[in-house]
Amino acid sequence: MRSELSKRLEAEIGKMSIIDPHTHLQHRTPSAEFIGNIFGYHYIKMELSTAGMDVEKLMDDSLPPDALLKNAVPFIPRIRNTTTWWGFMTICHALGFKDTTINEGNWQDLCKVASETMQGDNWYKEALDSINIKRSFLTNLPDEDLEGCDREAFVPSLRTDEWVLEISEEATREKLEKLTKSSISSLKDLKSAIHETAGRFVGLGAASMAISLPPDFRAFVVAEADAAKLYDKVLNKKRLTDDELARLKTHMLYSLFEMCDEFNLPFQLMLGVDRKVHLKLGWDGFSTDLGMMKTFRDALNRFPNVKMVFSILNTILTHELAIYTKTFANCYAAGHWWYTFYPCIIKPMILERVQSVPYTKLIGWYSDSYYIEWTIAKIKLYIRSLSEALAEIVEEGYMGEELALEVAQAMLWDNNVNIFGLDL
Amino acid sequence: MRSELSKRLEAEIGKMSIIDPHTHLQHRTPSAEFIGNIFGYHYIKMELSTAGMDVEKLMDDSLPPDALLKNAVPFIPRIRNTTTWWGFMTICHALGFKDTTINEGNWQDLCKVASETMQGDNWYKEALDSINIKRSFLTNLPDEDLEGCDREAFVPSLRTDEWVLEISEEATREKLEKLTKSSISSLKDLKSAIHETAGRFVGLGAASMAISLPPDFRAFVVAEADAAKLYDKVLNKKRLTDDELARLKTHMLYSLFEMCDEFNLPFQLMLGVDRKVHLKLGWDGFSTDLGMMKTFRDALNRFPNVKMVFSILNTILTHELAIYTKTFANCYAAGHWWYTFYPCIIKPMILERVQSVPYTKLIGWYSDSYYIEWTIAKIKLYIRSLSEALAEIVEEGYMGEELALEVAQAMLWDNNVNIFGLDL
Amino acid sequence: MRSELSKRLEAEIGKMSIIDPHTHLQHRTPSAEFIGNIFGYHYIKMELSTAGMDVEKLMDDSLPPDALLKNAVPFIPRIRNTTTWWGFMTICHALGFKDTTINEGNWQDLCKVASETMQGDNWYKEALDSINIKRSFLTNLPDEDLEGCDREAFVPSLRTDEWVLEISEEATREKLEKLTKSSISSLKDLKSAIHETAGRFVGLGAASMAISLPPDFRAFVVAEADAAKLYDKVLNKKRLTDDELARLKTHMLYSLFEMCDEFNLPFQLMLGVDRKVHLKLGWDGFSTDLGMMKTFRDALNRFPNVKMVFSILNTILTHELAIYTKTFANCYAAGHWWYTFYPCIIKPMILERVQSVPYTKLIGWYSDSYYIEWTIAKIKLYIRSLSEALAEIVEEGYMGEELALEVAQAMLWDNNVNIFGLDL
Repeated sequence: MRSELSKRLEAEIGKMSIIDPHTHLQHRTPSAEFIGNIFGYHYIKMELSTAGMDVEKLMDDSLPPDALLKNAVPFIPRIRNTTTWWGFMTICHALGFKDTTINEGNWQDLCKVASETMQGDNWYKEALDSINIKRSFLTNLPDEDLEGCDREAFVPSLRTDEWVLEISEEATREKLEKLTKSSISSLKDLKSAIHETAGRFVGLGAASMAISLPPDFRAFVVAEADAAKLYDKVLNKKRLTDDELARLKTHMLYSLFEMCDEFNLPFQLMLGVDRKVHLKLGWDGFSTDLGMMKTFRDALNRFPNVKMVFSILNTILTHELAIYTKTFANCYAAGHWWYTFYPCIIKPMILERVQSVPYTKLIGWYSDSYYIEWTIAKIKLYIRSLSEALAEIVEEGYMGEELALEVAQAMLWDNNVNIFGLDL
Repeated sequence: MRSELSKRLEAEIGKMSIIDPHTHLQHRTPSAEFIGNIFGYHYIKMELSTAGMDVEKLMDDSLPPDALLKNAVPFIPRIRNTTTWWGFMTICHALGFKDTTINEGNWQDLCKVASETMQGDNWYKEALDSINIKRSFLTNLPDEDLEGCDREAFVPSLRTDEWVLEISEEATREKLEKLTKSSISSLKDLKSAIHETAGRFVGLGAASMAISLPPDFRAFVVAEADAAKLYDKVLNKKRLTDDELARLKTHMLYSLFEMCDEFNLPFQLMLGVDRKVHLKLGWDGFSTDLGMMKTFRDALNRFPNVKMVFSILNTILTHELAIYTKTFANCYAAGHWWYTFYPCIIKPMILERVQSVPYTKLIGWYSDSYYIEWTIAKIKLYIRSLSEALAEIVEEGYMGEELALEVAQAMLWDNNVNIFGLDL
Repeated sequence: MRSELSKRLEAEIGKMSIIDPHTHLQHRTPSAEFIGNIFGYHYIKMELSTAGMDVEKLMDDSLPPDALLKNAVPFIPRIRNTTTWWGFMTICHALGFKDTTINEGNWQDLCKVASETMQGDNWYKEALDSINIKRSFLTNLPDEDLEGCDREAFVPSLRTDEWVLEISEEATREKLEKLTKSSISSLKDLKSAIHETAGRFVGLGAASMAISLPPDFRAFVVAEADAAKLYDKVLNKKRLTDDELARLKTHMLYSLFEMCDEFNLPFQLMLGVDRKVHLKLGWDGFSTDLGMMKTFRDALNRFPNVKMVFSILNTILTHELAIYTKTFANCYAAGHWWYTFYPCIIKPMILERVQSVPYTKLIGWYSDSYYIEWTIAKIKLYIRSLSEALAEIVEEGYMGEELALEVAQAMLWDNNVNIFGLDL
């Protein structure tokens, strides 16, 4: 049963200013236009497909957005139990919809009220304001155009996957050549172009580098001379063996750590997606590979001034991440990613972290959302889970209520400001 | 503290009709005759042995059943704390025993009252009625005689372990030859005999195939021609290497998937027993092998029309099973098996599944019992755990009470009817 | 919310006599002299370092103990949230400190009051009395001097790491030669010296052997003749390959099992520390290696009369340890070690063990402390967690309150007496 304390904490935390340090928002179109855009989130589509919805109708991108909702109406009853569905209904209500279910009789009303609200002039600002989100990080590709970006709302973050995972692709090199108006004919040139691009992002106020690494990624030192030869093979269009490619990739990651060190830029690392588990629909899964976290032991020791902010996409390594965060001053634990974003998983993770790790090392939450509407659902779910966890700690006598609120504020605001050096 | 809501849910769920989709009941003798049969369940004997009971007395099968209880009386106080013991006392009370402990002074009373009750004319029907179990699945070997089976109470399920794991044994072939009055001299003949036998079970109303796979089993495609040569070696009494045998086994499993596809038969897969961990007493253990679930990725993609219903015997892969169930329309998660059948493990598993997976994909419970008396204990324990889990979800505001009851009913009844295509 | 039952259980358990079966106390100086000794516990220093305290000041052993506290004052606010900090404040209050925070204004008061209390004549006896700890096990090296040891307070336990893990070190042999006034020129001589030393400890009332094994340790049988040749290589100062050394180590462990069998001595095995994860500060980590527990399957079967008492330093193998304890009469589960010593981890572990394992097989708690002051904090935290877990079991109806208290007493007292054969 929820205690009065938990509800009181939820109310207080609900008033706090919040930073969302990882999203996939587009700065020009941060909100959706149609409820179908929101309903078409892969979290929902996966549930509809597993519940038996006709795949052709589910995945038909040629239909107008709201047609997805129409087609899905018969399947909605089957997914009502999940907290993702709770999130969707939370969004609907925030958009002005009044009913508690969606059916043949009212789905058009929902489409209408949602569009009206979202197409209002100041909607995205109002929406973020209503949940006290003062800054949302973007996920920017190296060639992304930040012209006209609302810097009162968004903070750039440089996504670097292609410089590590796709380093042997021609397109990676060509994009860098175009960006830096240079010609790349060696590893040195390559790094120089990356350095220049990263520097440009720093100049634009980017607050972090970010990368999502596959579960079998292994991080280790590879000598410059070795990597240079490997990259020469790439430039000469010679095939790298799997081992050679792995060496080149980790060398590139370490090069990025060096640049983070130089630019005083934190690095957000997302570990554990297993891509395309479902072949036909392309759904991603997660991995239970036990080496994901510990492979960063060397880098954490080697780059004490590079803040590494980790998220892990499974439940069996959350304890290890907490203890790494307790062990290394430059290691931070962040949020609850994707398949771990359920109240019954979030609460134990919070308890584990708050009982064992100094709270200045914890980034409580990020939305990972593509439209700010999902941010509304996710912050509400998180705040409830956080309140439940903190209430349990207070009720068991390990912390006072006042400190619990300080901890919450640090996890949602202060730590983001301090770790990412935000100038607010 | 249990909330009023949890107790109310328990009372309501306790009135629902239930299907038990996995048992080891014998259709001719579904109930025990003596309390010693029930007390002799390996769940209890293992606890007595670890608590120090003399192994000779514990394992002496030459004694009459109730002698086990007599010999165990001094050790009972040591196992009173487990929920297995709670289950046993729950059975005793259902059989008419009034005391709350068992000791030198009353064990004979228990034997007497239990025998009287169980030897009553309609006992097994009354017992199943008292817990609203309308159908219990059997576990039938290919040559099992279903003559006279009470089809109002039992549903056949074809156990196929021998056609995969013991495919290189002569006895497997001989049994099939006898069953089909055929001679098997090739893989083609073998499959034909299996197909005929499976077809016979479908004709008898079997609702599923079932198999228990060892933790190191790996499922992958092996070409027909390769498998045919391997089976020729078997027929010629030549030894297969470990690798060859593994290829033959997975080929057989894939052949069964093909038959399930043809017969529209769901497949129940039990993963993770590690046999004979205790050498002297033969107790089985479980495995933490992380590859058990993900080895079915190919089969889940390849046979979209074959419903695969998984149970896993450990706690570290429950999250992966939930997410697989969410990912694949043909993947289902079932119950809480053996070493995971404890309230403190069941409740988090239910929360994880109900918060993340559309509820039509979840089979809540099965008893796995050998006598219907243990079914009584296990369904009561499960309903209490389910009530606790659903109450928590309702109290945190993610679901209404009415929906919670719908979810419970689906997990205990509707989903069994729909997944296994029961005609009730 | 904590229930009245939980508080009542906590109060009752708080009155029970307790045995602490694993500590690193020094029998001549079991208590600290300065608060700085207590504050300098690596649990606290690790938190200060991850929270950003200047490493030079943190690790400077040339400073007087209380200077650490002085230097740490600015960093204390950052670690106030952890339950380790709760433990430290609990100690401060037990020493007579009245404030609820430590800051520039009062740290000297704390130093003063703490020293006065701890330097009192009977402090350590009073302190242990106040928490009802009647016996604390020591961790004694083979050459440790037990002269004058207070046998009303302490029980020797023979730490055997060097006889297994450092068996190829000259110092190990030399120490044994000195202890036994013998010359070791063969494996036979070596074992004879170990046997004599172990026998001496048995004579001194040692209640167990103890060892901490690294996560990659593998236990298996190695023939005497093989091991003898390997040890000859050691004596001849020839390098052993990694494989040879692994064979020699496991042979030594099995030799110790044989001695435990002969001397009727239980063996305490601690599994899972991963040493020196943090290179500069030397912090240890833990391992998720899944083979740690199951490698003892052979030894558990082979030595049915040797009581093996296991602790595991991670969360993903706790289920396996519980089921091993349920499976093998000679396997016992003990306490909550180090990185698992947090309320949110302890409670689920207790539930798992108490619901699945006969309670006579469970050792509830040990302090692992270096000074008896930390014992105060750790037993209080444990009793609260135990009360919460038992209350949940009682409230869900699986056990009565009276039995819950019996279980608690067994876990804290009776089982220690019975398993270690203490003569109290």
